[in-house]
Amino acid sequence: MASKEKKQYVYFYGFGKEHTEGDSSYRAILGGKGANLAEMANADLPVPPGFTVSTEACAYYSSHNSQYPTGLEKQIKDKLKKLEKLMGKKLGDPADPLLVSVRSGAAVSMPGMMDTVLNLGLTDKSVQGFIKQTGNERAGWDCYRRFIDMFGDVVMGPTSGLTHEDFEHELVAIKNKYGAAEDTDLTAEQLKELVDKYKLVYKSKVKKAFPQDPWEQLNLSIQAVFNSWNSERAAKYRIINKIDGLLGTAVNICTMVFGNLGEDSGTGVAFTRDGASGKAVAMGEYLINAQGEDVVAGIRTPKNLEEMPSEEVNNAIWVKASKELNRIMKKLERHYKYPQDVEFTVQQGQLWMLQTRNAKRTGLAGIRWAVEMATGVDVETGEKLPKLLTAKKALKTITGSDIEQLLFPIFDADEEAKVEPLLNALPAGPGAAVGKIVFNAKDAEALVEANPADELILVRQDTSPEDVGGMWAAKGILTSTGGMTSHAAVVARGWGKCCICGAGSLKIDEAKKEVSVDGKVYKEGDWLSLNGSTGNVYAGQIPTMSSPVVAAMNGKAAEAKKAKKHPIYLMYKEVSDWADQYRSINVRANADSPKDAETARAFGAEGIGLCRTEHMFFEGDRIWDIRSFILAQSEKEREAALKKLLPHQRKDFEGLFKAMAGLPVTVRLLDPPLHEFLPHSEADQVVMAEHMGVDLELVKSRVSELHEANPMLGHRGCRLSITYPELCVMQTRAIIEAACNVAKLKKQVIAEPEIMIPLVGTRAELDLLEAVVRKTAEEVLEKRGMKVDYKVGTMIEIPRAALTADDIAETAEFFSFGTNDLTQMTYGYSRDDIGSFLPDYLEQKVLSVDPFQSLDQTGVGQLVEMGVKKGRSTRPDLKCGICGEHGGDPESVKFCVKTGLNYVSCSPYRVPVARIAAAQAVI
Amino acid sequence: MASKEKKQYVYFYGFGKEHTEGDSSYRAILGGKGANLAEMANADLPVPPGFTVSTEACAYYSSHNSQYPTGLEKQIKDKLKKLEKLMGKKLGDPADPLLVSVRSGAAVSMPGMMDTVLNLGLTDKSVQGFIKQTGNERAGWDCYRRFIDMFGDVVMGPTSGLTHEDFEHELVAIKNKYGAAEDTDLTAEQLKELVDKYKLVYKSKVKKAFPQDPWEQLNLSIQAVFNSWNSERAAKYRIINKIDGLLGTAVNICTMVFGNLGEDSGTGVAFTRDGASGKAVAMGEYLINAQGEDVVAGIRTPKNLEEMPSEEVNNAIWVKASKELNRIMKKLERHYKYPQDVEFTVQQGQLWMLQTRNAKRTGLAGIRWAVEMATGVDVETGEKLPKLLTAKKALKTITGSDIEQLLFPIFDADEEAKVEPLLNALPAGPGAAVGKIVFNAKDAEALVEANPADELILVRQDTSPEDVGGMWAAKGILTSTGGMTSHAAVVARGWGKCCICGAGSLKIDEAKKEVSVDGKVYKEGDWLSLNGSTGNVYAGQIPTMSSPVVAAMNGKAAEAKKAKKHPIYLMYKEVSDWADQYRSINVRANADSPKDAETARAFGAEGIGLCRTEHMFFEGDRIWDIRSFILAQSEKEREAALKKLLPHQRKDFEGLFKAMAGLPVTVRLLDPPLHEFLPHSEADQVVMAEHMGVDLELVKSRVSELHEANPMLGHRGCRLSITYPELCVMQTRAIIEAACNVAKLKKQVIAEPEIMIPLVGTRAELDLLEAVVRKTAEEVLEKRGMKVDYKVGTMIEIPRAALTADDIAETAEFFSFGTNDLTQMTYGYSRDDIGSFLPDYLEQKVLSVDPFQSLDQTGVGQLVEMGVKKGRSTRPDLKCGICGEHGGDPESVKFCVKTGLNYVSCSPYRVPVARIAAAQAVI
Repeated sequence: MASKEKKQYVYFYGFGKEHTEGDSSYRAILGGKGANLAEMANADLPVPPGFTVSTEACAYYSSHNSQYPTGLEKQIKDKLKKLEKLMGKKLGDPADPLLVSVRSGAAVSMPGMMDTVLNLGLTDKSVQGFIKQTGNERAGWDCYRRFIDMFGDVVMGPTSGLTHEDFEHELVAIKNKYGAAEDTDLTAEQLKELVDKYKLVYKSKVKKAFPQDPWEQLNLSIQAVFNSWNSERAAKYRIINKIDGLLGTAVNICTMVFGNLGEDSGTGVAFTRDGASGKAVAMGEYLINAQGEDVVAGIRTPKNLEEMPSEEVNNAIWVKASKELNRIMKKLERHYKYPQDVEFTVQQGQLWMLQTRNAKRTGLAGIRWAVEMATGVDVETGEKLPKLLTAKKALKTITGSDIEQLLFPIFDADEEAKVEPLLNALPAGPGAAVGKIVFNAKDAEALVEANPADELILVRQDTSPEDVGGMWAAKGILTSTGGMTSHAAVVARGWGKCCICGAGSLKIDEAKKEVSVDGKVYKEGDWLSLNGSTGNVYAGQIPTMSSPVVAAMNGKAAEAKKAKKHPIYLMYKEVSDWADQYRSINVRANADSPKDAETARAFGAEGIGLCRTEHMFFEGDRIWDIRSFILAQSEKEREAALKKLLPHQRKDFEGLFKAMAGLPVTVRLLDPPLHEFLPHSEADQVVMAEHMGVDLELVKSRVSELHEANPMLGHRGCRLSITYPELCVMQTRAIIEAACNVAKLKKQVIAEPEIMIPLVGTRAELDLLEAVVRKTAEEVLEKRGMKVDYKVGTMIEIPRAALTADDIAETAEFFSFGTNDLTQMTYGYSRDDIGSFLPDYLEQKVLSVDPFQSLDQTGVGQLVEMGVKKGRSTRPDLKCGICGEHGGDPESVKFCVKTGLNYVSCSPYRVPVARIAAAQAVI
Repeated sequence: MASKEKKQYVYFYGFGKEHTEGDSSYRAILGGKGANLAEMANADLPVPPGFTVSTEACAYYSSHNSQYPTGLEKQIKDKLKKLEKLMGKKLGDPADPLLVSVRSGAAVSMPGMMDTVLNLGLTDKSVQGFIKQTGNERAGWDCYRRFIDMFGDVVMGPTSGLTHEDFEHELVAIKNKYGAAEDTDLTAEQLKELVDKYKLVYKSKVKKAFPQDPWEQLNLSIQAVFNSWNSERAAKYRIINKIDGLLGTAVNICTMVFGNLGEDSGTGVAFTRDGASGKAVAMGEYLINAQGEDVVAGIRTPKNLEEMPSEEVNNAIWVKASKELNRIMKKLERHYKYPQDVEFTVQQGQLWMLQTRNAKRTGLAGIRWAVEMATGVDVETGEKLPKLLTAKKALKTITGSDIEQLLFPIFDADEEAKVEPLLNALPAGPGAAVGKIVFNAKDAEALVEANPADELILVRQDTSPEDVGGMWAAKGILTSTGGMTSHAAVVARGWGKCCICGAGSLKIDEAKKEVSVDGKVYKEGDWLSLNGSTGNVYAGQIPTMSSPVVAAMNGKAAEAKKAKKHPIYLMYKEVSDWADQYRSINVRANADSPKDAETARAFGAEGIGLCRTEHMFFEGDRIWDIRSFILAQSEKEREAALKKLLPHQRKDFEGLFKAMAGLPVTVRLLDPPLHEFLPHSEADQVVMAEHMGVDLELVKSRVSELHEANPMLGHRGCRLSITYPELCVMQTRAIIEAACNVAKLKKQVIAEPEIMIPLVGTRAELDLLEAVVRKTAEEVLEKRGMKVDYKVGTMIEIPRAALTADDIAETAEFFSFGTNDLTQMTYGYSRDDIGSFLPDYLEQKVLSVDPFQSLDQTGVGQLVEMGVKKGRSTRPDLKCGICGEHGGDPESVKFCVKTGLNYVSCSPYRVPVARIAAAQAVI
């Protein structure tokens, strides 16, 4: 007991080291806000003094039936006395009252807990003292009525049902009574009347009068903060965000300062560097004679920080405040080694710092900050800047997604801001796109063929592999259904093409060739602008610009040369190089064509992790050969059709091997159900029948035979090759023959094909097809008298495969986790249909994130871990990778590193993202 | 080394205990066949002597690069000498040769290993001795040419490529040359010529002459048997059937006996009891002057065993043989305590027993045998029979599926045998059905409404919940697609209705109202007969009879009273009672209506494990209310529609609670995607729009909005209630109000509702809906002032739910494993689409069984085990059950017992099956 009584629960801060008991290392017990306030106070920055009740006190309170630990009340009262002494004011003093704010603050930023209470300490008596001291009667009554409102709502609301709306009702009434248009039109007298009304409202709900004892006010507020820690909202937030191990929330009691005491007072927010462009110039906004909330409320327009020294009234005060603020901001940035976002108030000429924290920024700004903090050189001007971090530490400050923002064409931000979006939907493919509406993939292809400069936006309910030609032809894709990993989204991201999905408010009438949104109708040929980074869709044209990184990789020689000097390219290069120094895992790309493979290699891919061979079947005339295969009535006819496809596939593989010379290339055998190669509309079926010289009924009957209730769970993947082994034979031949051919080129290419059997759920499937692959490969090699070092492995994308990975690894030489399908089956979510309930799930916090975007480490991840562990139990050197969309998601990449995968594979445009994420998982 | 040399690898048997070294307890090292031969020899039965090379020798050979263990060759030669001495003949003796057969035989019956070689020991010289001894020149050359064929194909084939076809080619040539229609038309001289041809064929492929050294013949044969143990086919068979722990195969070398040496010789097969009806009378067939294969080959028609004493030629010999055979059969049955299936040969008046094994039988016969062996009373005649087993042991001899055969109407077997089936497909629903073809569920309903006596077979591509009315109206269902767990199959089995699925050869033209099979056309109104136990479909009408068990349960009083005296009912009762004594797990039923629940209880169900509430929505006018719900534009409209549904659901629940008074009733909240409640054809949509007085476009647009690419993975299950919590509210109200209502009945019913949230994949889903359920339930109970003991739990049917079961069990009070969906997602197989590849998978042994029929214990079972274990780690008293189709599959039930589930739940008609299986898992 004795030791408990001595335990320190309350920590003072303010006016230098002498008075301050914590610092930023006390985050766990003072919370983020409390620790930062202490840190600033230690650094002699002008922080209004106060004290923090620790998270340990909250933990005791939570686990002891809402009782304070012994001694806490005394400790609070002692610190309050110290504060009163330091400030020369007393809480509730009728002559010169101390006012304080009360705020919650855990070690991790956590919405869902108690809001702030300001102006605590005002009572019917002390308000008079406040007025006397400030000489501002209106401010006095305004502060008081705000305090009653906040205290009633925030502190007493959870138990009494009292809400802000109850007070708002009175405010509206009094404004009507006096014909006041705005709150600010109310006079001191009218506000005083309002205070009386507020007290009545309070009493009617709380069944007690508004407390006139400031200690009671403070004590109730602290308890309310503690209670809010275990509120349903906060508890749920912690479960969803997997926040555990925290003791509770701290409570910060801070001396109030006032920016609304006249023309020598003001308040504002500032950033030490530009959070949008990343430029190393301070930015910010402020308002004279205002309180904090007024800056954000938008009733008055704030001024830019740079105007402060030019204020006409009290110029000397503002010049001094501006200088002081700039000095402090530089100090903070050096101190925290990161650009800061600060709140400040000037009370009658005295500058006070209310908060500092690491600043938010765009991806571009994040990269620029990292590079400039590490190199100490301004990327644009070449001027010297303070060197704040090592490259390794700078790398930690950015994310994979930051670098992605360097890669895509973007809208001119100013131009975009001028236009109101038509709708907002899922940002499924990055960048910006502007084009004329087209409703049909074929039309898009035809239009671009006729006029290659034509800029189109393909607008469809959803897309299928049949549409890829038109999707490629279009600048951007907009669909009304489907989620972040629908066909449209995956294909678009693979190409780095702008795509917005799941725009449910679109009513598409393909027959009429028009689309309506909220009654507004857009026809074929009308212009749309898509922001794939935000999901905003605009009517009309917004100007775009292309990324220097992409221009450097893909552009013509002159363009590339120029782009390579552009600061954006140089920053990209810098951080990518840092990443490659640290990462322990390979990064490969998913690429289906030689062109994709070249792009991927330019972005740093170390091999191909997934080549989806079916995409090769849609190009040019090949579709007719695969259709012949599908219509064939005998194995002989099927083989004849495949014979025609063979040289095309072989040529593609030669191109892939050349592009990836010396690096592994994983080729997945045919995966989608066969009906994806057949047309579904009667008109297209007629065209097909005519083109192939077959009976329309044959086409129709085959389409109907191949129809499946759930194609995702149907006749696809290795199941196709088990029914039609000749498919597997043809594809293996194409791969091995291509490897032989490139080995004989003048400039010899050593291919490293990894032949991947998809959708394996049982070892028997793999055994059967591995035998077919090896037999075919050996026949080719024997005939050619050559050797090719090829591997045979499998996708792990069926839960059962992960569960029986030990057995499967006896045959498989490598595993590639297909986490798209694995997520579909582990959750039972169809990627194409998740759009119908995902919004509800995210809104109601059933899911914190779309599991197709970021790997579900708890469930799906458990299967991945199991697959790796079991697989390596029977084959210790089993090569494991991931080739789902998750391979490009930073959090997922970190999981892959932790799980011991050998590589991640993602779309070419996400290779830079994955490189960064892989490095960050290690450093 | 010394001890190894002494190890016994070869075991002699024949002519009593004196000469016999093994018995049936040596199964592991002598194999099943060898051990049984030794057992018979020990019992002084006339077994042609021989010896068995042990499985241990095979194991050594397999693991030592195909080398015999030291001493094996000598041991074989020693036993051969002993055999020669005992038989007074020598292998290869030109004067009087001993001939032997060589057969493989592991401890577990295992196809895929080496076939039999007969007549070993014949050479160019010894064939003369054989002819001299038997006086039958033709037999000599015929045996010799058969031996060359078998030896060439079976022993030398695997290494040389020589096959039976190579010999067959010569046989055809010589038959053509001499104008012989049948093999038997060839003379001794011609057969001798054929032997020469065969030897040439042999030499050309094997590159060596046919061996004339009988020891070489024997040695090569033994090695070939050993090699066959590791053949691809055999190894695969063992993997698929999970046979491990075996040492290898034994090799049986048996003295040949000949049933083809004249009218005093013959051969046959016999059963100690009737394997079809189960009657305790011996049955069998034989042929005079014939070899074993002739009986099964079907070239000559065998005679019934009872005719044997009436043979005219050599009557005394046959009277004696018949007596002796009957005596031996009785002895064998008593010895093995089970009806036997024997092979015998009479060689020149001497009876030899070549094999005995437990007889195969139908389910009916199996049950009858068990009951009669345990009670010692003939169930039909009341006569005394030998009491062979205790009830417990008798129970072990039957399977759950056996008892199922007692429950369904069946064809008169004799009548069925007269008709050739049209086609054979998947036997998806049991029993027999006869009716007129109808192509449309609505037509079926209308026809039966007009004439309740109308007997119909519903023929469709597949069925959907919309079709249930018509399915109920029809006597049987025949579909061209879908597997054993397609909608049609599951619904039909639930009702105990005959159903055949996946009849791919049916070409249905619904518009023309006709179906063709192999070009034969059947129109609406034509008769079909379906055997749901075999999958046979017949044109025309085959007479059926109904099951006395069902009549006893469900029939009208008089009929039931009569049925309860029927032997089939009495047998059912007997074995069910046995089972209930032993089983440790509860058996519940899946039932969706009060009527189903009553049936289930009559069959012994101890509660309802799954009530699929959606089935209630299709009855009568309710479909219009749920459609109103779906078309509604606001929550208010939706609630209005639900308000109409509420009383219907409540009434159903009252019925269920009454039928299951005192037993738990698990009610699953709405599960299927909403589009299942809307019509898909335009014509039906027009009807719907008119009936509901809404715009056709509204109906169409809602159908199109609800369309999903993969409905199985779409907006269904708990996802519906998260979007529309009012659904969950209505269903909960109906359940709790029903429980209140039945508690107030004069004859009070204590309901035990278990409210089950389907398709949960994350704890957050369950938390959200559990809160809605509890809030609603408490509101109802408070209003009524009553208490109801209800539970809230979840289906575990999504792999992720099993993986995170520890978390989910914090909220769930019970788990019900929905192994249908769990299998779909664990394998990635759609039940509705598996028909397109399952046949290939079964044929190629990728799967040994449809995983929807019998639970995949390796993969899906792993998730079930994990779910139970993890769930009970956070809630030790978690009640766990299974409610998929597997709940009625005997093997799966055993798995459930092993895994520690509290109950299994299956369709009412499978409850008796599950009771038996549950008992067998324990005994």
